[in-house]
Amino acid sequence: MDISEFISLMEEIAPPELAEEFDEKRIGLIIEGKSDLQKIACALDATDYSVSEAADMGCDMLVVHHTPIWDALTRINGKTGSIIKRALNSGVNIYVMHTNFDHAKGGINDALSELLGLTNIDNMSLGVVGDCCLDLNEISERLNGSLRVYGNPGDINRLAVAGGSGFDLSLLNEACELGADAFLSSELKHNIMLKSPIPLIESTHYDLESPGMKALAGRMGWEFIEEKPDICIY
Amino acid sequence: MDISEFISLMEEIAPPELAEEFDEKRIGLIIEGKSDLQKIACALDATDYSVSEAADMGCDMLVVHHTPIWDALTRINGKTGSIIKRALNSGVNIYVMHTNFDHAKGGINDALSELLGLTNIDNMSLGVVGDCCLDLNEISERLNGSLRVYGNPGDINRLAVAGGSGFDLSLLNEACELGADAFLSSELKHNIMLKSPIPLIESTHYDLESPGMKALAGRMGWEFIEEKPDICIY
Amino acid sequence: MDISEFISLMEEIAPPELAEEFDEKRIGLIIEGKSDLQKIACALDATDYSVSEAADMGCDMLVVHHTPIWDALTRINGKTGSIIKRALNSGVNIYVMHTNFDHAKGGINDALSELLGLTNIDNMSLGVVGDCCLDLNEISERLNGSLRVYGNPGDINRLAVAGGSGFDLSLLNEACELGADAFLSSELKHNIMLKSPIPLIESTHYDLESPGMKALAGRMGWEFIEEKPDICIY
Amino acid sequence: MDISEFISLMEEIAPPELAEEFDEKRIGLIIEGKSDLQKIACALDATDYSVSEAADMGCDMLVVHHTPIWDALTRINGKTGSIIKRALNSGVNIYVMHTNFDHAKGGINDALSELLGLTNIDNMSLGVVGDCCLDLNEISERLNGSLRVYGNPGDINRLAVAGGSGFDLSLLNEACELGADAFLSSELKHNIMLKSPIPLIESTHYDLESPGMKALAGRMGWEFIEEKPDICIY
Amino acid sequence: MDISEFISLMEEIAPPELAEEFDEKRIGLIIEGKSDLQKIACALDATDYSVSEAADMGCDMLVVHHTPIWDALTRINGKTGSIIKRALNSGVNIYVMHTNFDHAKGGINDALSELLGLTNIDNMSLGVVGDCCLDLNEISERLNGSLRVYGNPGDINRLAVAGGSGFDLSLLNEACELGADAFLSSELKHNIMLKSPIPLIESTHYDLESPGMKALAGRMGWEFIEEKPDICIY
Amino acid sequence: MDISEFISLMEEIAPPELAEEFDEKRIGLIIEGKSDLQKIACALDATDYSVSEAADMGCDMLVVHHTPIWDALTRINGKTGSIIKRALNSGVNIYVMHTNFDHAKGGINDALSELLGLTNIDNMSLGVVGDCCLDLNEISERLNGSLRVYGNPGDINRLAVAGGSGFDLSLLNEACELGADAFLSSELKHNIMLKSPIPLIESTHYDLESPGMKALAGRMGWEFIEEKPDICIY
Repeated sequence: MDISEFISLMEEIAPPELAEEFDEKRIGLIIEGKSDLQKIACALDATDYSVSEAADMGCDMLVVHHTPIWDALTRINGKTGSIIKRALNSGVNIYVMHTNFDHAKGGINDALSELLGLTNIDNMSLGVVGDCCLDLNEISERLNGSLRVYGNPGDINRLAVAGGSGFDLSLLNEACELGADAFLSSELKHNIMLKSPIPLIESTHYDLESPGMKALAGRMGWEFIEEKPDICIY
Repeated sequence: MDISEFISLMEEIAPPELAEEFDEKRIGLIIEGKSDLQKIACALDATDYSVSEAADMGCDMLVVHHTPIWDALTRINGKTGSIIKRALNSGVNIYVMHTNFDHAKGGINDALSELLGLTNIDNMSLGVVGDCCLDLNEISERLNGSLRVYGNPGDINRLAVAGGSGFDLSLLNEACELGADAFLSSELKHNIMLKSPIPLIESTHYDLESPGMKALAGRMGWEFIEEKPDICIY
Repeated sequence: MDISEFISLMEEIAPPELAEEFDEKRIGLIIEGKSDLQKIACALDATDYSVSEAADMGCDMLVVHHTPIWDALTRINGKTGSIIKRALNSGVNIYVMHTNFDHAKGGINDALSELLGLTNIDNMSLGVVGDCCLDLNEISERLNGSLRVYGNPGDINRLAVAGGSGFDLSLLNEACELGADAFLSSELKHNIMLKSPIPLIESTHYDLESPGMKALAGRMGWEFIEEKPDICIY
Repeated sequence: MDISEFISLMEEIAPPELAEEFDEKRIGLIIEGKSDLQKIACALDATDYSVSEAADMGCDMLVVHHTPIWDALTRINGKTGSIIKRALNSGVNIYVMHTNFDHAKGGINDALSELLGLTNIDNMSLGVVGDCCLDLNEISERLNGSLRVYGNPGDINRLAVAGGSGFDLSLLNEACELGADAFLSSELKHNIMLKSPIPLIESTHYDLESPGMKALAGRMGWEFIEEKPDICIY
Repeated sequence: MDISEFISLMEEIAPPELAEEFDEKRIGLIIEGKSDLQKIACALDATDYSVSEAADMGCDMLVVHHTPIWDALTRINGKTGSIIKRALNSGVNIYVMHTNFDHAKGGINDALSELLGLTNIDNMSLGVVGDCCLDLNEISERLNGSLRVYGNPGDINRLAVAGGSGFDLSLLNEACELGADAFLSSELKHNIMLKSPIPLIESTHYDLESPGMKALAGRMGWEFIEEKPDICIY
Repeated sequence: MDISEFISLMEEIAPPELAEEFDEKRIGLIIEGKSDLQKIACALDATDYSVSEAADMGCDMLVVHHTPIWDALTRINGKTGSIIKRALNSGVNIYVMHTNFDHAKGGINDALSELLGLTNIDNMSLGVVGDCCLDLNEISERLNGSLRVYGNPGDINRLAVAGGSGFDLSLLNEACELGADAFLSSELKHNIMLKSPIPLIESTHYDLESPGMKALAGRMGWEFIEEKPDICIY
């Protein structure tokens, strides 16, 4: 497939105009490799590992959720330089869908909601709220990773979920108004925890966002490259 | 004790000039209650609970690490308004030591270092690095809370610790140069995890910072009010 | 009356959307006291005196024109802290209508215009211009306070009035184009005086704005608390 | 006298480095006229009147306290354009001493202090505090203009004075700490009045600042051009 | 003609709303001279020379493309002060049409396009692209000045032209997409040259912009004052 | 030579602390290639051509004056992406010395001054002024490129030179005060030309700056890669 045809396809899946303003120039084709695509890989992050894997599998395109170049560069060095070098040397393109894929139909949050079997869905400004029939052990099992739970959610009849860093006070209030008994997201800060109107369930970026990328890879027939952070609880 | 005498004492313990610039007007006597002090309490946070407890114990001063008024107010309402109201109605003063107590001798990081038995200490721009003879289970036990560990620290011979949100890339590099095998702090973000030069041990604000406040209360003969967040792992 | 019912009523009298942008988060219910209202007081300013008076009269709501918390606070102390404490301790709510009440129908400027008997009114971007049949002594008498007059207005056939700090060059020009012979407002600055196209009549905030608050109190059956600054001319 | 010789002389009288930062590029020779000076005039403001008077008297230099070009210009029109035109057409130079003359020895505040017979002087960050043996009527007489007095100063044993717009809260507190019973300045704002720790005496820029310019003219043998604003009290 | 009538006429020729935002307060009547106009002159720049020439010819209005007061002034001195003085002393008004005349129909770029005989015109966001049947020697001849050419344009079938400083990367790309073989403008920077997608022809502001002013003068029956910079090539 | 040894050497030649603030993170090793250096090349710019040439010559380091990544990047694409890719793919390091080499002893301006035989040198804040015994034809010959001259320099006894974009008004005044009869630099703007106190000689970045890089290459025994822009005068 030609790269321009691929880009058109991606812009239907995750329309760039759905992205938050801070994603400007940080989504889309952010590293240009070969222009004729034979095989496509998908991962949550563009790392040394995922780019190498993609190249080793003979892929010339790696679709990711998080750009490897968040802070704008005037020097190509260090860990980020190493990822860029690896991509350019092997001709692997890197294509980023970030907040546009969070908000997209069938995107990160929809996949998460489906994984947890939520029904009777309301959309929030980021993420969704839905009826839930799982308990915390079952949620942990479905997400395939441990949870840290703040407060006592008791029976969760209605759950808010937001892939990424969704523990924002205004979002917590929004969830509360939509009837949520608990809020599932990642990267909880201490001062937010103190002010939350409802119990909070903290997972990780990987466990909440990789399902969306994996589901996409499945639908499209792409290779999915797992790179689950090695997390242990003590 | 007169309030002004108390303030002088506190400014010796945690000199205001050690505070970071962002703490300007957010440390010191931030709620003025009674001016003659009979009894003093200490807690990590000024919350509805800790202010009520202080009042119930007959304390007229509550010393905390985190100000309840971080975002400047033009309205007295909601959760923050409720804390202010409770303090003013019971005449409880609130005194904040934040980054000045992080950096102070005998402050947050020194107490943490002592709790973990670190030796051969080097100061970082925030926190310390020291030789460590505990394993992860022992660290978890001493901190009295669970840890999330990223990467595989193996034997930890030298540990960096920073109470608060210390997972900053430049700080991680500083620790690495001082020989640290792992870095212990709280509020780890996904993109920092991907770029860290060493394994990371994530605890909570409470578990890392309350020891410093408790130690201070012990030394001074103040009441310490525990308010450990109710965290469960699933 | 329940507080939420009261707020709805106030938002009809002085719609928040009429407020200038700088009033954001500085109008409405800025101190939350009791939620069930028995008796309401009104004053120009929320001061130690007016809040105490309101409490002494058994009022649980004080409606004012100027917020006591203009500069956003991270500390509750000094004169402003004292007002907040007094309100919270007595359960008195404070509700602010500022530039929304300046612009509102029946608000500050309409009351002032009526007090001075202006007719044939044109609205300015702030304040009004109208035909006037009073001389300076009569204006002073109606406002119940002394005036400082710059330039020689001669016979005033058409007068511009703006409660508050209205001596803005663009407003003076606007008044001039609407046929005003003189401009009545408060807080005149030297450099504005030098550039004004018409004579200027300087009164005080209190004398120009309290009539609007008093008229409102009268219409609504509220207590009005006078607190005229003690001004003498030498 | 050559213009450069004159400038050297002026920079001794009111050293430019004493000026506040906001006066940058707004003091010194701000309109260049003839370079050989025969006769010098002095006034508080550069206005159509004072520039014309200076020209009519055969002066080629007008020394003033307030620049006529405060807001930077990209167009030469309106009232300011008219002053510039008048100066340029008659060859009259305009030289400005502003906050540098406020702070200078023998400047605005020293002249004011001397006019009021203050003794036992303390310098404030702007203005001075001194022992005073005048009552309000005598102060008004010496200043040759009416006063508006807020609060009740009673016997004034120690008076703070600041020519210009000195009613700044931090300055009022400074005066208070230096033992002042009252504060004399101009351009009082309503919200400052409400928060002042001491009674306030409001005069005008002209009455407080022209004595300093007049004294300078007297010492130097220059013409002084009076242009007292036409103020009446009703 | 009265000045206000003249201004209306000019605002039809070069509507102020066509100007770029950075021209705010820098176009229109920027120096007010006599209000009754007898004779009008036109030049590219308002300089000591062009203002004197205008005055000597008995003109009371000088229409120019570049304002003499680009950087806002708080002092009237130096070269700019000298131009202002000369204009005010002789009563010559100065009227500026800048980016509004660049974009206007019949303005700078249209005149340039006509001078070079371009056909089949497309408008760019600044300047135009058109079919061209001149070679570089002929272009140089028509512009009456030398050219510096970067890259090898070969046969120029389609030429982009932008009077003023048009060598902007986004404009070069726009021209390229409209089929231009080369881009003619002034003030080329080294780093733009390195990144240009097409060859660049560098002329001067004077040679590219004065034709538009001259054409206007011709149409209106005004005097045109030539002041071609004295440029030699070595 | 190891890369770190090379960097130490370069920091002696052009100390980073001499660089202007805007060069922060834009100088030094801006693209990391191989860490063991066999052969070094030098050019004015890092372009597709110069990087390829360096690689073809077997060089693994290219020292340049202008960084190819001026605007910070969040995407690796277009012309800049192509240069980065070429460097990374061939392992060529890119090292930038910019304003630090302008100001360094033996740097850009010293080389230029020597090429033109200037004597009796005064340093300016950027560039130098010196006695000159060349006429314009001879200067053009030495620089190996054409000049555009504004104004009539007549006999040039003392010449100011500044490699790069040196036509800054304050620099022109500085040169004038140091006795310069003319100022040689590149990228002259129309409005600067109108205000210059002395005649101006406009060359190009390449002709003024490449001599410094070439001289350095000569001294160090590096390959110098010429890439003179193809400029013709018509």
